[in-house]
Amino acid sequence: MLPPKENFSEWYHEVIQQAEIMDVRYPVKGLYVWFPFGFKLRRYVYEKLREIMDKDHEEVYFPTLIPETELGKEGEHIKGFEDEVYWITHGGLDELDVKLALRPTSETAIYPMFKLWIRSHADMPLRIYQIVNVFRYETKHTRPLIRLREITSFKEAHTAHRSYEEAEENIKLAIKLYKEFYDFLAIPYLILRRPDWDKFPGADYTIAFDTIMPDGKTMQIGTVHNLADNFAKTFDIKYETVNGSHSFVYQTCYGISERCIAALLSIHGDDFGLILPFEVAPIQIVIIPILYKGSEDKVMNFAKEIFGKLEGDFRVILDESDERPGAKYYKWELKAVPLRIEIGPKECDEKNVVISFRDERKKKKISVDDLCKENIEKWAEDMKKRLAKRALEFMREKIRYIESIEEIRNLEGVIVFHLCDNIECGMKIEEIFSANVLGNFVEIPDWLEVEENGKCIICGNNGKISALAKSY
Amino acid sequence: MLPPKENFSEWYHEVIQQAEIMDVRYPVKGLYVWFPFGFKLRRYVYEKLREIMDKDHEEVYFPTLIPETELGKEGEHIKGFEDEVYWITHGGLDELDVKLALRPTSETAIYPMFKLWIRSHADMPLRIYQIVNVFRYETKHTRPLIRLREITSFKEAHTAHRSYEEAEENIKLAIKLYKEFYDFLAIPYLILRRPDWDKFPGADYTIAFDTIMPDGKTMQIGTVHNLADNFAKTFDIKYETVNGSHSFVYQTCYGISERCIAALLSIHGDDFGLILPFEVAPIQIVIIPILYKGSEDKVMNFAKEIFGKLEGDFRVILDESDERPGAKYYKWELKAVPLRIEIGPKECDEKNVVISFRDERKKKKISVDDLCKENIEKWAEDMKKRLAKRALEFMREKIRYIESIEEIRNLEGVIVFHLCDNIECGMKIEEIFSANVLGNFVEIPDWLEVEENGKCIICGNNGKISALAKSY
Repeated sequence: MLPPKENFSEWYHEVIQQAEIMDVRYPVKGLYVWFPFGFKLRRYVYEKLREIMDKDHEEVYFPTLIPETELGKEGEHIKGFEDEVYWITHGGLDELDVKLALRPTSETAIYPMFKLWIRSHADMPLRIYQIVNVFRYETKHTRPLIRLREITSFKEAHTAHRSYEEAEENIKLAIKLYKEFYDFLAIPYLILRRPDWDKFPGADYTIAFDTIMPDGKTMQIGTVHNLADNFAKTFDIKYETVNGSHSFVYQTCYGISERCIAALLSIHGDDFGLILPFEVAPIQIVIIPILYKGSEDKVMNFAKEIFGKLEGDFRVILDESDERPGAKYYKWELKAVPLRIEIGPKECDEKNVVISFRDERKKKKISVDDLCKENIEKWAEDMKKRLAKRALEFMREKIRYIESIEEIRNLEGVIVFHLCDNIECGMKIEEIFSANVLGNFVEIPDWLEVEENGKCIICGNNGKISALAKSY
Repeated sequence: MLPPKENFSEWYHEVIQQAEIMDVRYPVKGLYVWFPFGFKLRRYVYEKLREIMDKDHEEVYFPTLIPETELGKEGEHIKGFEDEVYWITHGGLDELDVKLALRPTSETAIYPMFKLWIRSHADMPLRIYQIVNVFRYETKHTRPLIRLREITSFKEAHTAHRSYEEAEENIKLAIKLYKEFYDFLAIPYLILRRPDWDKFPGADYTIAFDTIMPDGKTMQIGTVHNLADNFAKTFDIKYETVNGSHSFVYQTCYGISERCIAALLSIHGDDFGLILPFEVAPIQIVIIPILYKGSEDKVMNFAKEIFGKLEGDFRVILDESDERPGAKYYKWELKAVPLRIEIGPKECDEKNVVISFRDERKKKKISVDDLCKENIEKWAEDMKKRLAKRALEFMREKIRYIESIEEIRNLEGVIVFHLCDNIECGMKIEEIFSANVLGNFVEIPDWLEVEENGKCIICGNNGKISALAKSY
């Protein structure tokens, strides 16, 4: 049995294991195994991301191992990562001459090659991405897909441009692509420019996508960094301009970790298990025959006929196992099957079927003729709209605009307020609430109904609309 | 310029870099970067392998890091790998309590979980696979895709069965699937059961796929291992039988490394660069307009029309760059584009095009009406047959049957002979030729025309038909 979703931490841990997304029993802290079922979900989610990225980027693969000498070149970058890098010191019984780091992220693996790849202005924009495992030596409490030691599929893009302006344009492109991806998953987000003290080590600035988890804490589900020419100077990446002079390139990088799947599971799920949009559900339709003595053959034949009609277009299964129908409902609800079709003797006679959508859990009788590809695709789209609406409503409930800090006793969810640029005001509000300033809004959602500019909630000077929350 | 293929080692090194398969300039020995172009090839090859594996296996993902305690459990296994394992000893500045190995292969990561996954006879056959990076601390000369320190995509399958017989059946299935894969790539192979002293550490026996490289050395391009209940006993993997007793499971595992791509490039390529079967070529068709003053627009319009006709069905590009046609031919031949279409003013007027296949390099004029999907697919199939035929002919030339060792002065290619089970006879012939016994033939190809049984070439006792060669 699953704990209620109200107890989010237990629910999450249990649903990941019980729905066979990941096996949490691997004998090293912070490392997990993707079950076959979970891996299918991962495939469908990443197929979409690849489709989105492939329009403007090319996929590549860089080595996992980064020599200490390269990783250490960019001063701020190494400072930001040195506490959480895994070090390889030995090959077989030999001690290595140069220690090798397991990539925590790939800037320092990729940019020495960018130096070789980029010659002239015609080589840009250069946009590549890779989907790779990255490693962080996490000492805090670990959680599958959220905080872990091997992120088995970090989707990182790296680009090079001729000017700061063209890099800025690319930041907009990256935001557009990530919006497309999260809209596809029906996951709502806030887009915020992180305060300077929380930017990516080595970046000019960092923009992040945050979503709100069921327990009210925010989770960063994507980041977009403008690196300006910081890394170009470190790795000496220059190009010949149109007029023949030489100039450093401007770079951006952006990434989405496995948290996209953590958000997908957490935000849509309910007390009965996972809920997934139709396109990414490993099993999209389950047919459950309701068998009574004497009419078994009739029902099974009808069920098989329907299965045959659907299997070319959808990921459908016919559950012929010996379990009771109730046990089957329980199992497939847990595993997020969006559309359930029940068939009993009565339905056979009437040429009807009983359908039920995973998010609504209401039964509806329809004619078998209406069970066609077009209708199912339409219902899938409707279901996604319902999921997106419900998720957005939840997020809105968790966000509160305040004009003075006295309005809040216990911080829950996200508070939105005006904040000035002064780092001391940021630090102060973080301290008051023991929470993180998420930064200024890059895009203010219509429904938020707040002004971009206003008085800083701490000092009263000019401030920008900002957000704060406890975060994962 | 590419060195002639006769100088295979230099040719290989250069073609991999110049055709933009991998960049060999990464600053750590034995680690290479997949270029965008090479990565596309990799995608198409693996899509096929996934399609083949997905019929009977489910894809999963197990962690990269294996604790020393698990890796060391199976005595022979660790002995086989201890010299080439990378060890992580530190996380950040902390020394780890238990050292972590970077997986050299995943038996010891997967089988502790099989113990938890398998309960009853109904849980089997269990067949999973994963496509993951594995690591070997190679101290010998390294080469991209052939001998390297990070194999970026090892395709390893692991299975569990109720009995030795069922495991044996699965070995046959694995061989069938690997044959399908290599037939698809038009790569010829020999299937041999390795001698006991060369089997996978911890296996009951090992069957290998070998191909012959252009320099006459063999390369192992796939292995299939029957593990019997060796690992089951080490990791205590038991199941409840039909009659309620408990029994150890029987296991097999099999894998293909990136050498499948090394073989693909090496075997089909020629002095002009790479040659690839149509299905896996990153670019399948290139259209090259031949422009003369005065007729540019006419030719470009015709070329665009043809491009528009083909782009929905094929990976086609229209090379509009400023380079001379000769430079374009050179570039796209190097990069293995199977079908080249040339269009000049004359062709426009006649509604013809000049086509040329990468393997034949002969020009042929055809009517534009014949340039349709059906014909192109037919030509692609014909081209693959030519590649397979040529590759098989080369392999046959490199194989020689002998009845006495005196027949050979200088070993070149593969020699085939009868050999008994006595390890001393095997060791002796390896010593005579400074080469490796590849083992007994599991399947004797028709064209080899040899008897399965005969007198051992060393001692004259009963022997089986066997092979020996210098190997990669």
